Amino acid sequence: MSAPRRPQQERSTLTRSRILEAAYATLVEDGHGATTVGRVQERAGVARGTLLHHFPTRSALMAGVVEDVIERRLDLLAAAGTNDATAGWDEVVDLVWAELQSPPFAAALELWVAARTDADLREALRPLQDRIFVTVHRGVTGLVGADGDRVPMLVQFTIDLLTGTHLAGILHPRPGADAVVEAWKAAVVELAGDA
Amino acid sequence: MSAPRRPQQERSTLTRSRILEAAYATLVEDGHGATTVGRVQERAGVARGTLLHHFPTRSALMAGVVEDVIERRLDLLAAAGTNDATAGWDEVVDLVWAELQSPPFAAALELWVAARTDADLREALRPLQDRIFVTVHRGVTGLVGADGDRVPMLVQFTIDLLTGTHLAGILHPRPGADAVVEAWKAAVVELAGDA
Repeated sequence: MSAPRRPQQERSTLTRSRILEAAYATLVEDGHGATTVGRVQERAGVARGTLLHHFPTRSALMAGVVEDVIERRLDLLAAAGTNDATAGWDEVVDLVWAELQSPPFAAALELWVAARTDADLREALRPLQDRIFVTVHRGVTGLVGADGDRVPMLVQFTIDLLTGTHLAGILHPRPGADAVVEAWKAAVVELAGDA
Repeated sequence: MSAPRRPQQERSTLTRSRILEAAYATLVEDGHGATTVGRVQERAGVARGTLLHHFPTRSALMAGVVEDVIERRLDLLAAAGTNDATAGWDEVVDLVWAELQSPPFAAALELWVAARTDADLREALRPLQDRIFVTVHRGVTGLVGADGDRVPMLVQFTIDLLTGTHLAGILHPRPGADAVVEAWKAAVVELAGDA
């Protein structure tokens, strides 16, 4: 293979980004079922062959989107954390809750649920699963001002609990969801002890 | 319209059940995307017209499945609760955790996530959403031996937290998921005070 000229490489990188952007937007707006290679190709405005050059299968395309989704989730958490080096549990709970309402979380949810019954997608996502959970957990833990042995587990409780609360309200905001979030702020402080 | 003879009514009820059973099984095994009218018709072994007589649209079929899924989830919880009139938090946590690994929960998850981007399905599910959450919450609360003002919120915490923990492990069991469940048993007792 001859070494490609730089402008060609740049074009290729841009095309790859445009395909991923189109796939991500389709996933968020229309769901996993509608995110076909044909639909993404059309939305990105590229030729079929170009898309297949970058992503030979639909699963490969989805795996590319997951990497993209991980970056978007981490960017959101990092952006939220820059105002203050450390945050109280109230702020951390609000931050995790806000992130769960964001398009990147919706995209992740689509992929995870689709992978339950799609063996190809499951194989593509498997190596990325631990990375997304470890990095989100680490990102949130980094924001917690309090110190202590219990902090990592309380962060896990917070992420899991708010994920469940959010999931229950996907159809329309569940009456009382905000009350659960507020009650959890008090509970997590209680569990943290003298945090 | 003339009044149908009884045997005809019975046949009709049986056919409806067979269609719902086929739709439910397809949803659990193959996911929402694959649960088309054609696939369900084939699996149930009925004519297209027969299926459309009972369920004129795919959304109507899905709404029928949700009713069925609600009954299945409540039956599981009720069956788990009959051994003992009251249960400790340990048992309640184990019971909710077990229910989340069951096929009816997988079916509910498929429907909820699909409804995020499917307006017809969302409209069909909306009136059922509150019913499923209220009845599951009431069913679990009924199992808790402890009494007190905090019990309803602690039950909500338990359901939401374990749902989030389960969701994260859909691809393959998350390392540490069991540790989260065990840690939550201790935390919920702590929050319940002298429960």
